[in-house]
Amino acid sequence: MDPLIADRIQFSPRRDAETVEAGLGFAPKFDAAGLITAVAVDADDGTVLMVAYMNAASLRLTLALGEAVYFSRSRQEIWHKGKTSGHTQEVVEVLADCDQDALVLRVRQRGAGACHTGYRSCFFRRVALAGEGADGCQAAGLVPVYAEKCYDAAAVYRK
Amino acid sequence: MDPLIADRIQFSPRRDAETVEAGLGFAPKFDAAGLITAVAVDADDGTVLMVAYMNAASLRLTLALGEAVYFSRSRQEIWHKGKTSGHTQEVVEVLADCDQDALVLRVRQRGAGACHTGYRSCFFRRVALAGEGADGCQAAGLVPVYAEKCYDAAAVYRK
Repeated sequence: MDPLIADRIQFSPRRDAETVEAGLGFAPKFDAAGLITAVAVDADDGTVLMVAYMNAASLRLTLALGEAVYFSRSRQEIWHKGKTSGHTQEVVEVLADCDQDALVLRVRQRGAGACHTGYRSCFFRRVALAGEGADGCQAAGLVPVYAEKCYDAAAVYRK
Repeated sequence: MDPLIADRIQFSPRRDAETVEAGLGFAPKFDAAGLITAVAVDADDGTVLMVAYMNAASLRLTLALGEAVYFSRSRQEIWHKGKTSGHTQEVVEVLADCDQDALVLRVRQRGAGACHTGYRSCFFRRVALAGEGADGCQAAGLVPVYAEKCYDAAAVYRK
């Protein structure tokens, strides 16, 4: 794919709800900050790898390159995932939801993991409720879901 | 589960990034509007069913009830998914991501579909690029991914 076509990709205008929900024009809804939610899942087994955000420019780049390009809210910049680490995400398919304010990216994660912590997925802990405390409250805690990390994040991100 | 325990579920304070990312305290990050992104996936086959949002109260209710309770941004109210249609979502597991600003709900969808349009998933269309137009632009369009709807939305939501 050609990054130069990114600027020439046209989205549809958002007309009425019926057109957005039942039509075949791609009319993504960006929020007040200009962002749309993007959920990256493993194209082969469906595991949710990460949740991130895209602005219009990064969405166009994603479609043009066939690799996931997000917008980093913390750095306030275009974020070509894995560009420096080599852990890019090949985009197999982009899905839009009914009101077109969220996207699912079915990806093939290159390199070992999608999460900067070293796990395959950012969702490496599940929520559990602990028993009732003396104050009658129940603390919500987290339980690891992976036996181990899948790559050495410190080595990958060391500069 | 008991809805009355919802108010007694305690989240952890958000200390430093290291604690949030590597610790086992559940310290969900709600955005400026008091919401956290929640991605519901089929617990059995991993299909992404919908992307919605929760405030602290709906998250506590979800954990207490074991059913998905969201916060409707359009109606600005607690939204117990499927409470009226019967299409509730049994929550098998809630996962938190590294910085704890997004959740994945592994659910069993009761009734036929998660989407109000009648499809099993809200993500019933994929994005495709059309050929180059006379103006040099490429229109991004949508292509259906399901052969058919899985229930009659008009009948379910008719009052």
